[in-house]
Amino acid sequence: MPSDASSPDFFSAGGLLSPVTGGIDGASDHAVAFAMVTAELALLRAFAREGLAPAAVGEVAWEAQREPWFDLDVAGLARASVADGNPVIPLLPQVRARIAAIDPEASIWVHRGATSQDILDTALMMVGADICSRIDHLLRAVEGGVLRLAQQHRDDPAVARTLTQHAVPTTIGLRAARWLDALGRVRRRLASVATQLPAQLGGAGGTLASFVELFGEDAAAALPGAFALELGLRAPDAPWHTDRWPILELGDALVAVVAALGVVGSDVAQLARTELGEVSVAGGGGSSAMPQKQNPVDAVLLRSAAMRAPGLAATLHLAAGLAVDERPDGAWHAEWPALQELLRLALGSGTRAAALTSQLTLHPDRARENLELTGGLVVSERLALVLVPRIGRERFDALIVAAAAEGGLADRVRALPEAAGLDVDALLDPEQYTGLAGRITEQAVRRALQDGIRP
Amino acid sequence: MPSDASSPDFFSAGGLLSPVTGGIDGASDHAVAFAMVTAELALLRAFAREGLAPAAVGEVAWEAQREPWFDLDVAGLARASVADGNPVIPLLPQVRARIAAIDPEASIWVHRGATSQDILDTALMMVGADICSRIDHLLRAVEGGVLRLAQQHRDDPAVARTLTQHAVPTTIGLRAARWLDALGRVRRRLASVATQLPAQLGGAGGTLASFVELFGEDAAAALPGAFALELGLRAPDAPWHTDRWPILELGDALVAVVAALGVVGSDVAQLARTELGEVSVAGGGGSSAMPQKQNPVDAVLLRSAAMRAPGLAATLHLAAGLAVDERPDGAWHAEWPALQELLRLALGSGTRAAALTSQLTLHPDRARENLELTGGLVVSERLALVLVPRIGRERFDALIVAAAAEGGLADRVRALPEAAGLDVDALLDPEQYTGLAGRITEQAVRRALQDGIRP
Amino acid sequence: MPSDASSPDFFSAGGLLSPVTGGIDGASDHAVAFAMVTAELALLRAFAREGLAPAAVGEVAWEAQREPWFDLDVAGLARASVADGNPVIPLLPQVRARIAAIDPEASIWVHRGATSQDILDTALMMVGADICSRIDHLLRAVEGGVLRLAQQHRDDPAVARTLTQHAVPTTIGLRAARWLDALGRVRRRLASVATQLPAQLGGAGGTLASFVELFGEDAAAALPGAFALELGLRAPDAPWHTDRWPILELGDALVAVVAALGVVGSDVAQLARTELGEVSVAGGGGSSAMPQKQNPVDAVLLRSAAMRAPGLAATLHLAAGLAVDERPDGAWHAEWPALQELLRLALGSGTRAAALTSQLTLHPDRARENLELTGGLVVSERLALVLVPRIGRERFDALIVAAAAEGGLADRVRALPEAAGLDVDALLDPEQYTGLAGRITEQAVRRALQDGIRP
Amino acid sequence: MPSDASSPDFFSAGGLLSPVTGGIDGASDHAVAFAMVTAELALLRAFAREGLAPAAVGEVAWEAQREPWFDLDVAGLARASVADGNPVIPLLPQVRARIAAIDPEASIWVHRGATSQDILDTALMMVGADICSRIDHLLRAVEGGVLRLAQQHRDDPAVARTLTQHAVPTTIGLRAARWLDALGRVRRRLASVATQLPAQLGGAGGTLASFVELFGEDAAAALPGAFALELGLRAPDAPWHTDRWPILELGDALVAVVAALGVVGSDVAQLARTELGEVSVAGGGGSSAMPQKQNPVDAVLLRSAAMRAPGLAATLHLAAGLAVDERPDGAWHAEWPALQELLRLALGSGTRAAALTSQLTLHPDRARENLELTGGLVVSERLALVLVPRIGRERFDALIVAAAAEGGLADRVRALPEAAGLDVDALLDPEQYTGLAGRITEQAVRRALQDGIRP
Repeated sequence: MPSDASSPDFFSAGGLLSPVTGGIDGASDHAVAFAMVTAELALLRAFAREGLAPAAVGEVAWEAQREPWFDLDVAGLARASVADGNPVIPLLPQVRARIAAIDPEASIWVHRGATSQDILDTALMMVGADICSRIDHLLRAVEGGVLRLAQQHRDDPAVARTLTQHAVPTTIGLRAARWLDALGRVRRRLASVATQLPAQLGGAGGTLASFVELFGEDAAAALPGAFALELGLRAPDAPWHTDRWPILELGDALVAVVAALGVVGSDVAQLARTELGEVSVAGGGGSSAMPQKQNPVDAVLLRSAAMRAPGLAATLHLAAGLAVDERPDGAWHAEWPALQELLRLALGSGTRAAALTSQLTLHPDRARENLELTGGLVVSERLALVLVPRIGRERFDALIVAAAAEGGLADRVRALPEAAGLDVDALLDPEQYTGLAGRITEQAVRRALQDGIRP
Repeated sequence: MPSDASSPDFFSAGGLLSPVTGGIDGASDHAVAFAMVTAELALLRAFAREGLAPAAVGEVAWEAQREPWFDLDVAGLARASVADGNPVIPLLPQVRARIAAIDPEASIWVHRGATSQDILDTALMMVGADICSRIDHLLRAVEGGVLRLAQQHRDDPAVARTLTQHAVPTTIGLRAARWLDALGRVRRRLASVATQLPAQLGGAGGTLASFVELFGEDAAAALPGAFALELGLRAPDAPWHTDRWPILELGDALVAVVAALGVVGSDVAQLARTELGEVSVAGGGGSSAMPQKQNPVDAVLLRSAAMRAPGLAATLHLAAGLAVDERPDGAWHAEWPALQELLRLALGSGTRAAALTSQLTLHPDRARENLELTGGLVVSERLALVLVPRIGRERFDALIVAAAAEGGLADRVRALPEAAGLDVDALLDPEQYTGLAGRITEQAVRRALQDGIRP
Repeated sequence: MPSDASSPDFFSAGGLLSPVTGGIDGASDHAVAFAMVTAELALLRAFAREGLAPAAVGEVAWEAQREPWFDLDVAGLARASVADGNPVIPLLPQVRARIAAIDPEASIWVHRGATSQDILDTALMMVGADICSRIDHLLRAVEGGVLRLAQQHRDDPAVARTLTQHAVPTTIGLRAARWLDALGRVRRRLASVATQLPAQLGGAGGTLASFVELFGEDAAAALPGAFALELGLRAPDAPWHTDRWPILELGDALVAVVAALGVVGSDVAQLARTELGEVSVAGGGGSSAMPQKQNPVDAVLLRSAAMRAPGLAATLHLAAGLAVDERPDGAWHAEWPALQELLRLALGSGTRAAALTSQLTLHPDRARENLELTGGLVVSERLALVLVPRIGRERFDALIVAAAAEGGLADRVRALPEAAGLDVDALLDPEQYTGLAGRITEQAVRRALQDGIRP
Repeated sequence: MPSDASSPDFFSAGGLLSPVTGGIDGASDHAVAFAMVTAELALLRAFAREGLAPAAVGEVAWEAQREPWFDLDVAGLARASVADGNPVIPLLPQVRARIAAIDPEASIWVHRGATSQDILDTALMMVGADICSRIDHLLRAVEGGVLRLAQQHRDDPAVARTLTQHAVPTTIGLRAARWLDALGRVRRRLASVATQLPAQLGGAGGTLASFVELFGEDAAAALPGAFALELGLRAPDAPWHTDRWPILELGDALVAVVAALGVVGSDVAQLARTELGEVSVAGGGGSSAMPQKQNPVDAVLLRSAAMRAPGLAATLHLAAGLAVDERPDGAWHAEWPALQELLRLALGSGTRAAALTSQLTLHPDRARENLELTGGLVVSERLALVLVPRIGRERFDALIVAAAAEGGLADRVRALPEAAGLDVDALLDPEQYTGLAGRITEQAVRRALQDGIRP
């Protein structure tokens, strides 16, 4: 998006009831409207670039692009979109009028041969590419923060919880390393999709017949590529009016981003519980009634996004599967707001995660305390591996049950004749039963560094 | 909503990419913000009504309610909602300032003892009740239009299509009657839910402890009822912070409305196909490229809503099922934007359906022509009932196969010795094989009239 | 379901990967197949009851109903359903053969005038009604268990957690009371839906034309009611081939049940966390590796159901909104497996919840300990109400911040000159700041008792 | 899957109410159970391969693998899975018993150091890889059929329909080419995912601590790779217990397959409508009541799958985003049945599509007739491009409106003085306004041929 087109609130959308996207400036209605204008102007430039329209038409388009478009009546476009079912048709007179104000003769070139879907699909791809690029930056920042945590706490022991219960020891570093790998993977997936987003230019029925009529076959065949080039999008292999792979692959990559961040949010929200206390958040949200609370608001909002995104992606999948005829009777229309909200959710999640991880404090001491809560039973898997061959499964289980009920695990083990010669203290030390946690953490850190992430 | 609070665009939201909600003025961010203000003011009035605050506090609240609230900085509230995770906290200073401007002493009563969730949940219920009432009116209008069609075309024959194929005859009247019954049912369901929507007033943990501290047990116990009374909502049996039945029952009723209208849209979109031509729409949307088209835009938008609503309702169901603790860590937040958009979709669907059915033209002549397309095979079920007992299944199937391939059904039947004495013309007349279509239509019409629907 | 038709595994379905439904015997493929048989036989009885077929036909149908149907080749039906798109058509020869084996002349009455949808829709309603009745019993058992908890722990204090953080005091009783109200509401909603489930009998196009041809108008008009009566279902107002309200209202009620139980599961899973320890489960699931763990498996499975049900309900909503023509081209088919799985999920959730709550142990002592974790800050809302009027917001906030950082809340309060005369111990006692928790619990208990629930 | 393990129904699942998966033999409960067995046995072989267990253990595992496993009590496993929440734990005694029957000493190596999730996740990946491979073959067959259509009907004209209305001309070839491109893309996407599916081996907490205890660090680090090698899966970078990218990327690719096939089904269902008649299906499903119908059952079932898959994928996205702790409390469990059903839906869709396209008959004559239905108005876009510059927009629109109302388009154009010299017949000939349809078709065909697709 050319930055000179932006005014304070031009790109930000309300979202009063969607704090996860509060104040973010992307994929707003204004941004989409501006992208539609940009697509229309790029078509003029493509005509000129290909020698199909006078060079002056391209220059006029550049000039119009530089103009501020703040005063686009986006609410009016929304109202007017009802009659024809999309916002492109009511936008055209506004674009024509501005072009005509610069050069009356150029205005006949506006939207020439194009159909609404060419402009709207292309605008969605542009907005999508822009948001992908911003999410990429945000994820890199998040990964940087997480990388730092993985390095700092590589060997700090913590408890691994499964089905809510203390299971075996792990490390804080490994926890961070799992986030790190996951975030890197969804970032690369999104980046890979972003480079493939195509422009759309097929005309009314996807045959480019109007362009053939106006300019001949070869010129028409070259036009989608020229149009894409003007916008930094990929030239489409063919019109994709009813083959919605760009929407699906983008949507799938976005929902994967939201899910990966949802895990971070879910883990932080759990670890921040008053009883666990293994993390605390800076500037946590307050409460209108309880001044002492430090709510992990960013984590909570990441979770809310992870609950909302799947329904939006489902709408995209459904719409893609019902894309009948040469332009579908509802499936196309269902797709736009779902994609827009999904873009905003992913961008909002990235923003919140960057805020969260930039100021997340871990408490290795509390993690260590929690690890001790079961009086050593957290290493009972290890004990089983060592003791069962010596005393049998039955006696071992009885020992564990007794220790779980009445404590005294270490003494009970020491009292076993068969345990003579074992270093019981070492055996029961959670820090000595973290397996490959350090090594796996190290590898994840190395992968992130190789990927350009810096703490 | 007090009408004096509305300015031209106060209640309408953008929705550039959601033409089905284009220009509708309901459940916008402003409407929600205004409902939150109204809830805060109603709490002041409830304090006064119960004698807990000076009577002047109630009067100040009434005065503030009458003020225009156009200039609420809703975009600012959205931005500020990020820090604490909801928009109530940043709203409070604005409300306090306005109250203080009228009467400085009254401002200490603002939000006294309440928690954000009390205000936000209550505001959603108010907006919900308002939208329900508007949808009720719209559905009655739609039903009126459909009732007229059912009456006018009660006995006009048409083909019943199953799995896309001509099956047996039916009537246009019955088709309309099916819509009519469906719409009446979802309208009554929504109305039933609307009358049960409760206010929320539970304080920070759902115990009303703050109100007990301030006013004593009995006064605290009476307060939710007084608060609800001020707002025209139901007094809650108990705080419903984590028992989200009001959200679920409202959401379910809304998605049922959207689905019933989606069927109307789907039928109209099919019947309007160029090849079917059994309906045409007035002022159908045009095309930027094809001047001859009359797109059934309203029907298409109804279908788009029917594809989007299920994902939003699913978010509500999910959030309700994960409403853990005394205020959940994300599930509550996921619910607001889903409900808001579902309210808007249902209202938008109602609006589009009212526009569609007010100007829908049926073409009984085309319906009759279509009925003839299979050369009489559309009554082969009837033929089977009559002929199989006379000629056996095998010969009958052979006859049908031959007629399907080469035509001449009537002659083939007449040529059967066993058909002697049968009135073959009557037997093959689709209009004489419409079963109880007329009777069922009549009953649906009667039910609608008894329900107050007028053509 | 007549019990004499059941063999050990007749009604249970695999569901290897769906432990929440493991071993439950409802809505299995066999149960659905048997319901289809039952619907076919009921149609024979309805013919006889109305005097349209010889009385012997009805007797034959009763005899066939009493037969074991274990050996229905359900897997074969599933394979054969592909060709025609539904399992009714391949079922018919099996039904005809069994009837013919009893009385060859009766077999011509099988499926006479009916269409596949009549049988399949009716069978789904029968299975639905059966599952609703079983869920009703299960929910009553769950409510009984919860009622007992509410009574036993009415005044046991606990901490209310909001956004994962300790907020204010509440009681264990109130927590149980919230579950109790929620469960009662969804049970009554389901029961209300169950009584309205209609039979389907409309013939090929929903006009009952085949029945009119066979029996005349009045007899045809009476037939759906007679058919419904044979099955204990409601007589339909009209055929509902494309007006899917029975599916929607049933699905919505089921997903609400799953959600209400999901809240119980979510709360139990949280409270069972090793660090919280406020509940423990009997016979909790073990681990293949960690003998000491007591996993709250039932609670976890309730949560998994709450995550799965929304997507299934969304499929029902979608299918209802796209029910085009007189029998839709895919929407009808999408509905069956979604409803079947939703029925099974709700029944499985009820089963798991009954197991969970029958053996749930609460630990009021741990709840009390947790309540003390914040050193009294859990009553800071109350402190604010008392102290802010005396020392101002600024000094109060500073006091709380200091106490949060360094402890000593009670001493800090006592040290305030303005606090002279206050009973600081009482003020800081969480048990004395539970507001109306006891009263609300009492009311919920009373409502449940009035509703016939017994502990 | 080793073929010697299969008995007639071993791999097929019921799915009575899911005709789209009727009779397919993949991802059934038995297939999953067998995959779990295979994973357990592969772990024994991996121990032997790495020299951690005696070579005999590996040989025993190979022998056990060759055994028939038909008699696994899968229904019993499902029932038993409830207690611990997954089916691995009850499976272990069965596996141990069989190993012990071959070699009692080998049985202690079963599941050694592993956790349930290692086995279950790995089994899902194996089943996933198997299904991917089968879908690949099916899609290639479908693409072959579609390629043939694209070639045969490259230049057969047809009407492009947008929003249900005739828009402009296109070709049958281009319609097929759009399917072809879409199918190739989803096939390659699925294949790309299939090659990346990793084994899972992390032990109880994802640290491999048990393997370190048993074998030392380096041996433990090598084990996941050896395990993967035995199964033909990828060695995991790290345990992915809570980083569910393999599930998500597989699920997303599957739902994209279902969607691409849903478009084929939707197009075929529309084109097969009695009024359109541009395609007919061989062996179309019949009706229990209407012998003349040829229902496009396969197309309808493809659409039903396209409506169901999004809700299942949404469950996967949700579960991935809520994968908290080191093994989540419900999110993991929600994932299995959703993935299993999605695998079956995609495989079933591929099967149905292969059947559909192998016998699909196109009717170019009917397509041509339909193209004529608007009396030439289908080329009004072209007319506008030619005439508006000559007669202005206003006169042009009036001409079209008049022709739409009263016909006579050609004469009206010829009557224009400004049209003198135009070849009006050519101008109005739809076949001469198909733009680049032929060229785009050609390119899609070439791409498919280069990809190895053969007609």
